[in-house]
Amino acid sequence: MSKKYDIAIIGSGPAGLQAALNAKIRKKSFILFGTKELSKMITKAPHIQNYLGLPSITGEELKDKYTEHLENLNIIITEDKINNVFSMGDYFVLMGQDNTSYEASSVIIATGIAFGKPYKGEEEFLGKGVGYCATCDAPLYKDKTVTIIAQNSESEEEANYVYEIASKVYFLPLYKGNYHLKEGIEVLHARPIEIEGDTKVNKLITTEGVIETDGVFILRESISPKQLVPGLAMDGKHIKVNQDMETNLKGCYAAGDITGKPYGYIRAAGQGYIASLNAVVYLKDADAFEVSQNTPQ
Amino acid sequence: MSKKYDIAIIGSGPAGLQAALNAKIRKKSFILFGTKELSKMITKAPHIQNYLGLPSITGEELKDKYTEHLENLNIIITEDKINNVFSMGDYFVLMGQDNTSYEASSVIIATGIAFGKPYKGEEEFLGKGVGYCATCDAPLYKDKTVTIIAQNSESEEEANYVYEIASKVYFLPLYKGNYHLKEGIEVLHARPIEIEGDTKVNKLITTEGVIETDGVFILRESISPKQLVPGLAMDGKHIKVNQDMETNLKGCYAAGDITGKPYGYIRAAGQGYIASLNAVVYLKDADAFEVSQNTPQ
Repeated sequence: MSKKYDIAIIGSGPAGLQAALNAKIRKKSFILFGTKELSKMITKAPHIQNYLGLPSITGEELKDKYTEHLENLNIIITEDKINNVFSMGDYFVLMGQDNTSYEASSVIIATGIAFGKPYKGEEEFLGKGVGYCATCDAPLYKDKTVTIIAQNSESEEEANYVYEIASKVYFLPLYKGNYHLKEGIEVLHARPIEIEGDTKVNKLITTEGVIETDGVFILRESISPKQLVPGLAMDGKHIKVNQDMETNLKGCYAAGDITGKPYGYIRAAGQGYIASLNAVVYLKDADAFEVSQNTPQ
Repeated sequence: MSKKYDIAIIGSGPAGLQAALNAKIRKKSFILFGTKELSKMITKAPHIQNYLGLPSITGEELKDKYTEHLENLNIIITEDKINNVFSMGDYFVLMGQDNTSYEASSVIIATGIAFGKPYKGEEEFLGKGVGYCATCDAPLYKDKTVTIIAQNSESEEEANYVYEIASKVYFLPLYKGNYHLKEGIEVLHARPIEIEGDTKVNKLITTEGVIETDGVFILRESISPKQLVPGLAMDGKHIKVNQDMETNLKGCYAAGDITGKPYGYIRAAGQGYIASLNAVVYLKDADAFEVSQNTPQ
């Protein structure tokens, strides 16, 4: 287990980046998870007019400004994908891609809204054959049949890994490309409709027919917050927060599009600001509490 | 009475400016009240590190970026000081400095927190001898004694105007400078302590003694929101808002430092974004309601 951070920030859009700026300036130890591309939503934006202080820029230019700001403050992005965040009472354990794990006293969820609607049966069978991290759960499928629903090319590596353990792997790519997959993995061009089973998953219904399978991994761009953080209170597809960006879990904050509409970069940055400064206050209070607990009365 | 605007925005800090950007982009008619200096808080800031996308700039530079953005979108600042906002049910009347008035379907209050703590007796005697706009209320003090508590040089013009009507004017400047006042106005270098009276004001207690006076005008940089908008629900010295930046008054929004802590530029801009987009939705809904009211069933 690695060192315990004061703050773990998940997401490299404006909410996550702004939270990291404040964490850095306030001299907290923190880890920022995301990609060096920052946010696909932003780089795809052709023309941004409503980011106060940066008149009329392109998404690429905004991304460059952000990157410059990170470099200016020596902020590093950790390119691990967090699949689960577990609240342990007074700290959190974050599970990454290759059985990596991290500990943090507080968490800021700023993952954006680029996750899909769950498939029929997905939530029902979550943990009973449905999973989001193939490399994590692969050992459970030794000599079994696994189906991977893949939203991007990063899923290919996961499929190759699972193939070493499972007896059969179906790969359903929901994107176009040259699939770099091991021979023996069966690529099916079909859209998932429903996951079925009894106590555990036993089939996946698709537009092209039924697949008999013991497990279904759904590898999305990002994971829905409810699946990311067990126990997190939601408001529809958004994380329920108050005006301090607190969620229902002590020490867990959310910021940006994931907290609701109207979506937007400057709103996200503003909320990242609020979340991080409140996390700083939370850390101070938690420290004070710890001290008072250890002080003889 | 001038034209009715869709949105009136009060304040030219980041919250007000961001609201104006969105109003412009969404093609709403709007009026933005403030000063071309934008915000004294900002221009005084020596070094800003935490405004995502603008690494390490000075307050003056941030002000220049803001000004450039306004020019880029042809947004004009109206340099009138709004002293009162009255909710008329489905629209608002805004009262300016020289008996100017404006009408708007919705209002965004983004006046910041640069208002002082009220003096003892101030709230008690508000409207009973205490006022915030000397030029508005001067006619009430014909041949009477008026005391002006002045926080800035703009108050001098008001004092000169009041002097034409009142029999005696005391001027208590709380700033340094060369006072351009009419001969006969008595300048007192004293700090106010308490406003006293029975049914109406009759004296002002100061550090240098007691002034017998019929009226006290307190001319602050900005007015406290409760005094600005009668009926507005407060949470301590901040305007009470929900996550959509709605106040308790239908069609009235607030954004920026005036809504609470943590204070900050990017938070303010983010909230101006939320407030303005929700005002746009409100205008649409209000229109739809009006149409449905006028449509025979």
